[in-house]
Order: sequence, then C-alpha cells, then structure tokens
Amino acid sequence: MKRSSYKALLRPLLVVVSGPSGVGKDAVLARMKQLGEPLAYIVTVTTRLRRPKEVDNVDYHFISSERFQWLVKHNQLLEWANVYGNYYGVPSRPIREALEKGQDAIAKVDVQGAATIKKLLPQAVFIFLMPPSMAELTNRLRKRLTESPDTLARRLKTAEEEIEQLAMFDYVVVNRQHEIDLAVAQIKAIITAEKCRVIPREISL
Amino acid sequence: MKRSSYKALLRPLLVVVSGPSGVGKDAVLARMKQLGEPLAYIVTVTTRLRRPKEVDNVDYHFISSERFQWLVKHNQLLEWANVYGNYYGVPSRPIREALEKGQDAIAKVDVQGAATIKKLLPQAVFIFLMPPSMAELTNRLRKRLTESPDTLARRLKTAEEEIEQLAMFDYVVVNRQHEIDLAVAQIKAIITAEKCRVIPREISL
Repeated sequence: MKRSSYKALLRPLLVVVSGPSGVGKDAVLARMKQLGEPLAYIVTVTTRLRRPKEVDNVDYHFISSERFQWLVKHNQLLEWANVYGNYYGVPSRPIREALEKGQDAIAKVDVQGAATIKKLLPQAVFIFLMPPSMAELTNRLRKRLTESPDTLARRLKTAEEEIEQLAMFDYVVVNRQHEIDLAVAQIKAIITAEKCRVIPREISL
Repeated sequence: MKRSSYKALLRPLLVVVSGPSGVGKDAVLARMKQLGEPLAYIVTVTTRLRRPKEVDNVDYHFISSERFQWLVKHNQLLEWANVYGNYYGVPSRPIREALEKGQDAIAKVDVQGAATIKKLLPQAVFIFLMPPSMAELTNRLRKRLTESPDTLARRLKTAEEEIEQLAMFDYVVVNRQHEIDLAVAQIKAIITAEKCRVIPREISL
C-alpha cells in the first residue's frame, strides 16, 4: 500500500472507451491522437470491409477471416466478438508492450467487449461514450449511409440495451456533435485524475 | 439508472484540499480563483492576526476569539482546530449554500481537519497537496537507489508517516515551485473527472 501509493504517479493505465455503435468512439480517439496525446492507441483488428475514408493499420487492421481465426487460436486477442456478422478483436500484445514500458494504452471496444475486458482486467479505466440522445445517434448512423433500415433499427435497439449497462463503467462522457473536443477534454481529465489517485490501479496483462 | 447517471454530471462536489503546512494550499486556490474556475471558494475563519499581504474576507475571515467561540457554540463550523494558539475553522453555511444551488465548493484545511471532514462527509473529494521535497524523496524510494541502510530506513520512516495520512485521501497532487499551474490543472482535471463518474458522490450537509 505505502510504497505503491507513490508509484501510482507513474503507473500506466489501460483506458477502455466504449459505447453504442455510432456514438463516435473512432472520431474521439482519432481526435485525441491528432492532438498528440501521448497514449498507445490500440488498433482493433477486423474482418469487415474497409470504408472509403478508413486507412488500414490506422483506423483498423483489416485482416482476413483466416488471419483472425489464427489470432484467436493463438490467444493473441484480449477480447473479440462477432458484431453484425463481422469479427472485431483487441490485440493483447500492443497493450502489454505499452504497459511494460510505462505508457498508458487506450482501446476502443463495443459494450460487450468492455464487459469481457472488465472481467479480465477490472482495474482498467472504463469510459462509456454516451450519445446526447437517441435521436442524434440515429442521425449519425443514418449519415454513414452504410446502414439498411433493418440494420439501423437493430443498432438502435442494441444501443438502448447498452446504455442499460452503464453501471459497469467508471465514467460516462457525453459526445455531442460538433463538441468532440469537449469529450476529448473530459477523457484527458479522467486520465490525469486517475494518475493522481492515491490508491493506484494494478494492471497486469 | 439512466437518469441518475445524467444527473451525476450536474451534481455538485465538495472538494477538500489539504496537505502539510507550507505546501502552498493558499497559493493554489488563489491561482484557481484568479483563473476564474467557477467554484465556491470557502474562506476559513481564524483568530490569528492578519499578515501584511492578506486581505480580510478574501484570504481569511479575521475574527475575534469571542466571535469564534460563538460560531463553535452555534455549530456554524464544519471543522475547527487550535493551531499554535490560533483558532481556524471552516464555516458550514457557505458550503451548504453552494451545494444547494448546484455549485461545487472547494475548501482548504490542514491534514487533521481533512480527517475530521472525512468522517462527517466521506463523499467529499479529498486531495492531498504534496510538497516537492517529498516528491523527490518519493522518486528516490521509487527508483530504489543505493543509499546507506540508515538513510534509506529514515527516509522510509518519514515517507511512511506521510503516507499514513495519504491513505485517507482520494488524490495526491504534487505542488512544485514555479509549476503551480500544473497543480491547478491537475485539480481541475480531478473535478472534471469526478463529474463524469457513473456512480455519483452524494453530499448532504
């Protein structure tokens, strides 16, 4: 307890950012990266098709189903899931490497994924990105133009269920459109505050 | 669940800033005020003489012993103490008034005073301001340098005494000379993060 309290000042964190599909997890993390926040941004692997504006190995590691199965089989994914027919996974190694060199790591996952990571690493910092309203979430999903009406309805229903799962998160940050920097500032503040905690979080991976 | 989580964003906090005498509590809070942080700054009452640069009702409420005893008798002080023959007290009313109108309040007290408030209002946010010399000591301990066993033992003992007090705090902020704005930024971040908590703190006074 005693000595570890002091260590807390430097102990790296694993920050897990989650929230409903369409809430803006990617945009928020991209903005943090753009602002030069010194974090290890964990890039998710996925089997889904790259969208026009996405960059391979930056937005996601776009990989084949065979490669994905290999990663699962070799225990290389901290968490993985099949979301609407596509596989997504959070690679363990970059997280472990960041923490080992004392760097904070930040990962984005869906709410199911956050629940899995919570069981494995309860000492991670769990942040729920909340849409300001279901109406705005609907708008955002519509603007993607990648969703059929059926898909849209399913995603909205899931989002409602996910918001019910807030209780497992440490923090909730509302991501308002055109105010992404406010959400980013709150996440930065959460990281700063967490590093000031007297009782440190003990992450081992 | 949903609505209370949202409410948490607006629930006012009581922030208690403490630390050893001379660590810079007054300076840090004065700087926060100067920067326009929208908090209710709770002014301590004291029977000690005003120092040349101090302003009555800004730095302290300078009052007579009779007035002080009246406040104690009428239960108007959240916490009070006799420090080297002078009385100091934290008035309850301005805290209650701030919280009632939804404003965050911030008070500065010595470590004993923080312990008293912790018992009365465990849901307040307790921040320990740490002097830089202790931080330096901390660094040495953390790095486990090769000092003589005697020196190391003495340093450990000192650290232990400080840390015994630290344990009741939520956060520790190092106040380095000429870097007061860094301490202020960390306190601001702690307040921001606390307002994002999923499980809100419930203060009633």
